[in-house]
Amino acid sequence: MSDRFEAQFAFLREIDGLKTVLRGTPICDNSRRENTAEHSWHIAMFALVFADHAGPGVDIARVVKMLLLHDIVEIDAGDNPIHGQYDAAEQEAKELIAADRLFGLLPDDLARDFRATWDEFEAATTPDAKFAKSLDRLQPLMMNIASGGGSWTDYNVTLEQLDQRVGTKAKPGAAKLWELFRAKALPFFK
Amino acid sequence: MSDRFEAQFAFLREIDGLKTVLRGTPICDNSRRENTAEHSWHIAMFALVFADHAGPGVDIARVVKMLLLHDIVEIDAGDNPIHGQYDAAEQEAKELIAADRLFGLLPDDLARDFRATWDEFEAATTPDAKFAKSLDRLQPLMMNIASGGGSWTDYNVTLEQLDQRVGTKAKPGAAKLWELFRAKALPFFK
Repeated sequence: MSDRFEAQFAFLREIDGLKTVLRGTPICDNSRRENTAEHSWHIAMFALVFADHAGPGVDIARVVKMLLLHDIVEIDAGDNPIHGQYDAAEQEAKELIAADRLFGLLPDDLARDFRATWDEFEAATTPDAKFAKSLDRLQPLMMNIASGGGSWTDYNVTLEQLDQRVGTKAKPGAAKLWELFRAKALPFFK
Repeated sequence: MSDRFEAQFAFLREIDGLKTVLRGTPICDNSRRENTAEHSWHIAMFALVFADHAGPGVDIARVVKMLLLHDIVEIDAGDNPIHGQYDAAEQEAKELIAADRLFGLLPDDLARDFRATWDEFEAATTPDAKFAKSLDRLQPLMMNIASGGGSWTDYNVTLEQLDQRVGTKAKPGAAKLWELFRAKALPFFK
């Protein structure tokens, strides 16, 4: 029990670091940039609230779990704003090393479970992962709309770029929701 | 669909405010105070990681949902640090008004569901709510241990006060976990 508890405690202590990883998007009141821990909470709430947009066979509890842990690798690998410049292959390599280290802090059963859940999210081929990925892409639209432009302004994003970088990832898991969010975003691209 | 979406969007937009509610505890690196949104993410992770400490009949997915939304009322009612001075009856009255307003932003089915989940957490009589309440009380111990004292130092907390304010609330849902956390906290009370 004691070794197990120490491993559980160490992991939960380590992931506190996600509260200091800053994202490209501001929080809605535009007072500061959002951190990845609070982003993860917000998109888990998206899953609960937009559950009626989930496709057939989607298990919302699994989606929530996936969203809660999907960005933990950013503690070591950092966040790359979707509209910024970065090397996708290099980032993926960093995240794999981060996943080994961070999930490796857990007792074996939990390490295997969390790693499998993260791998599933990254692959984005199951219904749960597709829906989770869509919500992760759509949430920044809310932040940018609410804050008056946010990362769209900072990175001079065009509607074509939004469709490409967000739309193509959001549509497979939540086509109707993408359409509704896009309509709300349109006034910022005129 | 459109009215429903607007209500869902408005709620998720409004709860972004939880990212600006500050708690009494620091984050682990002691660089700043923790906000309630990231706290909610952290304790949801506690539920996933400490699932083996849940009592018979506990549904971890329900506990996670409960923890994600249990503090949303703080957007209107604010946070009262457990070791600070506050009027419990006044706080409860404020939280009830906040629950009416905030959950009332949602479509009716979700409003009823979230309100019932929050009421269940507050009553702390079901196995799910008892476990959730325990995790909510235990997480600040990690923050204070990691940061070198945190709110225990700020509020001159004694071991007897910790046992009373945290232990009595944490024991019903997670007795063994309380014992393990308390052992880790002991060096701060010598």
